[in-house]
Amino acid sequence: MNNLSKIKNIIVKNTQKLDCGMEISNFPLAYETYGKLNEKKDNAILVFHALSGDQYASGINPVTNKEGWWNHAVGAGKPFDTDKFFVICTNVIGGCMGSYGPNTIDSNTKKPIGTNFPVITINDMVNAQYNILDFFKIKKLFAVTGGSMGGMQVLQFVSNFPDKAQVAIPIACTASHSAQNIAFNELGRQAIMADENWKNGLYGENKNNPDKGLAVARMAAHITYLSKKGLQEKFGRKLQESDDVKFGFDADFQIESYLRYQGSMFVDRFDANSYLYITRAMDYFDLTKQFNGNLSKAFEKSKTKFFIISFTSDWLYPTSENRDIVIALNAIGADVGFVEIKSDKGHDSFLLNVPDFLGTLKNYLKTTYFNLNEKRI
Amino acid sequence: MNNLSKIKNIIVKNTQKLDCGMEISNFPLAYETYGKLNEKKDNAILVFHALSGDQYASGINPVTNKEGWWNHAVGAGKPFDTDKFFVICTNVIGGCMGSYGPNTIDSNTKKPIGTNFPVITINDMVNAQYNILDFFKIKKLFAVTGGSMGGMQVLQFVSNFPDKAQVAIPIACTASHSAQNIAFNELGRQAIMADENWKNGLYGENKNNPDKGLAVARMAAHITYLSKKGLQEKFGRKLQESDDVKFGFDADFQIESYLRYQGSMFVDRFDANSYLYITRAMDYFDLTKQFNGNLSKAFEKSKTKFFIISFTSDWLYPTSENRDIVIALNAIGADVGFVEIKSDKGHDSFLLNVPDFLGTLKNYLKTTYFNLNEKRI
Repeated sequence: MNNLSKIKNIIVKNTQKLDCGMEISNFPLAYETYGKLNEKKDNAILVFHALSGDQYASGINPVTNKEGWWNHAVGAGKPFDTDKFFVICTNVIGGCMGSYGPNTIDSNTKKPIGTNFPVITINDMVNAQYNILDFFKIKKLFAVTGGSMGGMQVLQFVSNFPDKAQVAIPIACTASHSAQNIAFNELGRQAIMADENWKNGLYGENKNNPDKGLAVARMAAHITYLSKKGLQEKFGRKLQESDDVKFGFDADFQIESYLRYQGSMFVDRFDANSYLYITRAMDYFDLTKQFNGNLSKAFEKSKTKFFIISFTSDWLYPTSENRDIVIALNAIGADVGFVEIKSDKGHDSFLLNVPDFLGTLKNYLKTTYFNLNEKRI
Repeated sequence: MNNLSKIKNIIVKNTQKLDCGMEISNFPLAYETYGKLNEKKDNAILVFHALSGDQYASGINPVTNKEGWWNHAVGAGKPFDTDKFFVICTNVIGGCMGSYGPNTIDSNTKKPIGTNFPVITINDMVNAQYNILDFFKIKKLFAVTGGSMGGMQVLQFVSNFPDKAQVAIPIACTASHSAQNIAFNELGRQAIMADENWKNGLYGENKNNPDKGLAVARMAAHITYLSKKGLQEKFGRKLQESDDVKFGFDADFQIESYLRYQGSMFVDRFDANSYLYITRAMDYFDLTKQFNGNLSKAFEKSKTKFFIISFTSDWLYPTSENRDIVIALNAIGADVGFVEIKSDKGHDSFLLNVPDFLGTLKNYLKTTYFNLNEKRI
């Protein structure tokens, strides 16, 4: 990765106590913004990214030269309309796009911190990201949003900072990471750790990265992002080139070359240790347990208006787990909307061009911002 | 693995042309039997094993000293009642329990054949196994059965040998391997090939086996064998030891240590190259395509009575794919029964103690054998 110098960041001076007990301070938090903060500073939206995301939600990522991960949702005339809203996205701590993470260079050893980085949680991520509000002198965000792990951060943010967002839109997520999801994450971690180049996470010293293991981890994850039906319709048993199979172990089927491509592209832009740390944070996420089994208590101090979105074919964070959040909010009479979007594209639906999803989001944001902020003028 | 000398086998003298074009002859086919062949030789059942199975369906596997993989179904008083039936099970070619496969020693080089072994298909497996009928001088089997890849072999067997089985019981299988299943198999293969010890499949020479890669492949497969609900009920977020997580990458959750255990146990008994070859054969399986898109034609020459079984929570070979076989059989007026068993145990249901499944199977076999063979006496 070149162009790392183009990354914007703030240095968080405050001391932050992590869930593991360690304290961190003077650490970088990388961010990007889209649109303009208005004078009243009431139009800011904080977007939280998912496992493999970063702060470059829209436009062209200056480091990878690829499109931002939420290009369908963030931009002029899009749901998170940058003609109207000021969108902020920060790289999570533990990430590898400029925020404090395992690929940060240790000032003493001049080498990447690697697995000497502390194990972090979703709570730690959110507490670090809160500093961006002070930086922009924003007293209250219009909205916090994100899909998948981004949605978990939305839930944790509202729980930690009950009066800091008018609206919360967690998408395709859960309040408590399931056994199956822990299993898939563990599979990815084991694939990375099985790579001889991993070297207990200290591979940064010799520049031979555990790319093969990381690619396998990405392939595993990618399968879980798509629905069985979607895979069948998109790939089925279509062959790569010839009319018949080739009786070998090269990619015969299109689905095979697709997965290999996904794996190989990922290693160019992602750090294997970050993958370990971020999946660990997801597995540890259990907001229900944080409130002794009563999820409602996570939100009882907040007046934030919730809008929860799930997708019919998402089997990783199925509607039932999203609905559990709605139920917990209903139990305390919170202001909560919920919609299940019909889509065959699986968990990936939140990242893709799914018109029903994007249209719903756009209408919701426009109407809600008008009702909460503009109407009063 | 010790005790390999205890494996029974026949040497297939006939020349067999494989789908890849290669011819094989004088190859070993390992087998095991349970119960006794009666005088009329009408009580034989040929059981086909799944991806990770072998010929030791019941009792104690003399090589691994572990229980047979279908101990719940095969034995005295069990569905495949060895007081009544003669159960035969052979190791598929491509396997690693004594049949001709990549771990067979090449007589010229004195080394394992490795990836010089030809890529085989389900059709090749079934054609090889057919030789066991001649060996036991069985003109017609009472039944052919098997789950998962075993079920695919059942379908191929009836298609290839339409008058050689009175009854066919394919369980939890498909007539055409889906994109999602190809994807998971490809993931497993990539995990094995990513292991530096794999060495293009010629690891047999140095005895450093690609155990780490094979363990990751097994972990991936294992997740797919269980249902999301089953995993949640069995493991949920239960911790391994302490009251709280340990902020590290050791196994915190029970599901993690369970998967690691499954991976580590598997490498003791299974050959990584066999895993490549057998998953490839599964991916290539498309009986519908063999008959130019009309699955019914696979069975139109047969009078075999079918009984098809699926499980509600099996997402790998879901009821819909099993039902497609029923539909193809109904379209030609075949004698076909179908039952979907309610179970939370996922694809693994066919291997586990699922009373509704085992009871249904037992009643069906007892009644059908009586009607077809005993009643006439």
